[in-house]
Amino acid sequence: MAGVAPRIDVERVIADLRELDRRTGGPDGARRVAWGQEWRAARGFVAELLAEIGVEPERDEAGNVWAYLPGEAEPALALGSHVDSVPSGGWLDGALGVMAAVGILRAWAQSGRRPPRTLALVDFADEEGASFGRSLLGSSALSGTLDPEAVAGLRDPEDRTLAEALAENGVDLARALDAGRRRERLAAFCELHIEQGPVLEAEGLAVAAVGGCAGVERRRLRFSGQASHAGTTPMDARRDAGLAAAETALAVERVAREHGGVGTTGALALEPGIATAVAGVAELVVDLRHPEAGELAAMLDEVLGAGDAAAAGRGCGLTSETVWRIEPIPFDAELVELALQAARRSGRGSPEVLVSGALHDAAEVARTMPTAMMFTSSIAGISHAKEEDTVEADLAVAIEAFGDLAESALEANLGSRRRSDQT
Amino acid sequence: MAGVAPRIDVERVIADLRELDRRTGGPDGARRVAWGQEWRAARGFVAELLAEIGVEPERDEAGNVWAYLPGEAEPALALGSHVDSVPSGGWLDGALGVMAAVGILRAWAQSGRRPPRTLALVDFADEEGASFGRSLLGSSALSGTLDPEAVAGLRDPEDRTLAEALAENGVDLARALDAGRRRERLAAFCELHIEQGPVLEAEGLAVAAVGGCAGVERRRLRFSGQASHAGTTPMDARRDAGLAAAETALAVERVAREHGGVGTTGALALEPGIATAVAGVAELVVDLRHPEAGELAAMLDEVLGAGDAAAAGRGCGLTSETVWRIEPIPFDAELVELALQAARRSGRGSPEVLVSGALHDAAEVARTMPTAMMFTSSIAGISHAKEEDTVEADLAVAIEAFGDLAESALEANLGSRRRSDQT
Repeated sequence: MAGVAPRIDVERVIADLRELDRRTGGPDGARRVAWGQEWRAARGFVAELLAEIGVEPERDEAGNVWAYLPGEAEPALALGSHVDSVPSGGWLDGALGVMAAVGILRAWAQSGRRPPRTLALVDFADEEGASFGRSLLGSSALSGTLDPEAVAGLRDPEDRTLAEALAENGVDLARALDAGRRRERLAAFCELHIEQGPVLEAEGLAVAAVGGCAGVERRRLRFSGQASHAGTTPMDARRDAGLAAAETALAVERVAREHGGVGTTGALALEPGIATAVAGVAELVVDLRHPEAGELAAMLDEVLGAGDAAAAGRGCGLTSETVWRIEPIPFDAELVELALQAARRSGRGSPEVLVSGALHDAAEVARTMPTAMMFTSSIAGISHAKEEDTVEADLAVAIEAFGDLAESALEANLGSRRRSDQT
Repeated sequence: MAGVAPRIDVERVIADLRELDRRTGGPDGARRVAWGQEWRAARGFVAELLAEIGVEPERDEAGNVWAYLPGEAEPALALGSHVDSVPSGGWLDGALGVMAAVGILRAWAQSGRRPPRTLALVDFADEEGASFGRSLLGSSALSGTLDPEAVAGLRDPEDRTLAEALAENGVDLARALDAGRRRERLAAFCELHIEQGPVLEAEGLAVAAVGGCAGVERRRLRFSGQASHAGTTPMDARRDAGLAAAETALAVERVAREHGGVGTTGALALEPGIATAVAGVAELVVDLRHPEAGELAAMLDEVLGAGDAAAAGRGCGLTSETVWRIEPIPFDAELVELALQAARRSGRGSPEVLVSGALHDAAEVARTMPTAMMFTSSIAGISHAKEEDTVEADLAVAIEAFGDLAESALEANLGSRRRSDQT
């Protein structure tokens, strides 16, 4: 496959990322929080890079930025990610995918040739949901799953509503779903991202194809026992909600291992929460993830069963409510296969297709068109922190492999395989 | 034994308790917080009751109130407890012991006879430590274990120092230890209190002798793992501090059962404490209690060993610090035997000597002179809450039994058995 497309200037892509970090990051990490000044500055830098290659960015009704490099055919192959970050975030999360896309457009623009299919760069708005708690905002507007009315009143820590923040950025939230019209010009979407986990680093690999995003079941379990005095309540007379939660947390771990998924109990609150009282109430948030819907459902069943048993064994009650859930989202089999081949050709790619445990814009886009992702390694798996980093040699391999995937995708027969609209 | 002493008017004691509750309690419970206006009102009511029987209360240098009814011999038998409460507290905690003592003084005063030994009523100041976090304040001044300099700067929620609060009540904290001189006039101390636990109610008993206060080892265990993403961190790559703490909390329960003590893990804090992150840090406060020092030490050893094992098994570090500790405090064997006999004679007394899992003024007094306590039942074991209550028939039996104990103690040969001063 290699040789047809112009070669990406990988060093330039990495230099662009470092310049972005210099302009919008600092000792406390990246500050490109969506709808804020540093985010606009980051987008301004991307616009400068595009202007340099003669491409003019456009903004859609949801605040996503698009840039098209015309090719021999339509619809376009879209490449991109997001430049917004969490507060005190990392320099690569999202930015890597946007800068890699800029690098691919640049390579074609400077080659003097037209790509076999139009290339569309996309920088999705507010992937992180850092201020308002609604992640994947721009990409869900594209896919049509966003409910503008339901999110309009969300407030940031400064008590500004989401609708107000968008309006300050020239975006009318009520019209955000009109961004979905962009899908008509698109055949497929590919996104390069950091893994944000430790798997590739542990295996000494630089890049991997990603087969989809795991489904998530997030439940809040409330155990109700009886608060009582730590000194005067014999062990046999206790109804300790905290210990029921502790047993359940350990069951979550066991169930996740048995099913090959992940299960996390990172939020636990005890009431009254003091050393001298048996906990009368314990609220445990359980986060379960698995790439297969059936396995995920089985995990949830087993965890709720373990919770019921732990509660009953201690004379406690248990209620649960869904905090959030999403079905597993598989990517396009053919594009994933192309990504796997590109990873293999890199010489440092994973022989396995990974599953993303985190959500990405690609998960939203995959609802409506063929989509795939590639991951590069993350040092110690750290992300959403100033320490977020990737060994530069791995970054270079991954950017090159992503260019290789784009080349394959440009030449694949994608136009006829678009999914029907789901809005 | 019965028949020598005048009979207590038990109904009057209960009526006094109800009047105190009417004056200084309400829909949210008792409001007799030490050093505040309602506490002074409660003490004013006790002074009224004493005036009615011709006894004038005195205040010592620590703010404890004393009232003496002269008898045939000295040193005196002290009876009492404390009238201060926690905010939104119960009507009986502390008040029961003071009103029962008033009832015994009243019975002698109205009998026209002198008791065989002087009776001293004591209402200790700030038993609860509700505002400043230092419990047993007045009784530890009496026993000499109080360190005035160490507590002078403690602050209440209104940012007032303990020294300031005492000064507003006419007490010079720097001179508080002078209260210890009162010990010279005392032979022994007996205190009636509610159990604040469920044992007597569960056995259908009204009253019990108390053999001492359990020792306490309270440790803060800090597990340090690695915070990481709930979706992207495989189970095998996790260092989950929260699960290490959960395992340890369950071990605390097991160890307490095995040793016949109690162990509580009512305070647990996870960091970052969010659903989408594996806990990188978990702080667990362990509260262990046992009446025997050797058993308590063994419990602590085993719990720390279990914590180390839980941490090591998950790649976490563990540090621990002592939050608070106190040795078990046994009461006087002879007085406890008299209390046990009085309980038995009541017809509804426990055949066993209980251990107090909570601390009481008697624990401080016991350091310096023969001391014993009696407990009456607590409905559902609830205390430090407006729901705190005791079946009235049990209250009556317990007040009568406490009077019986006082009668036995008045006639016992206590004077030669005072412990040497420990200040």
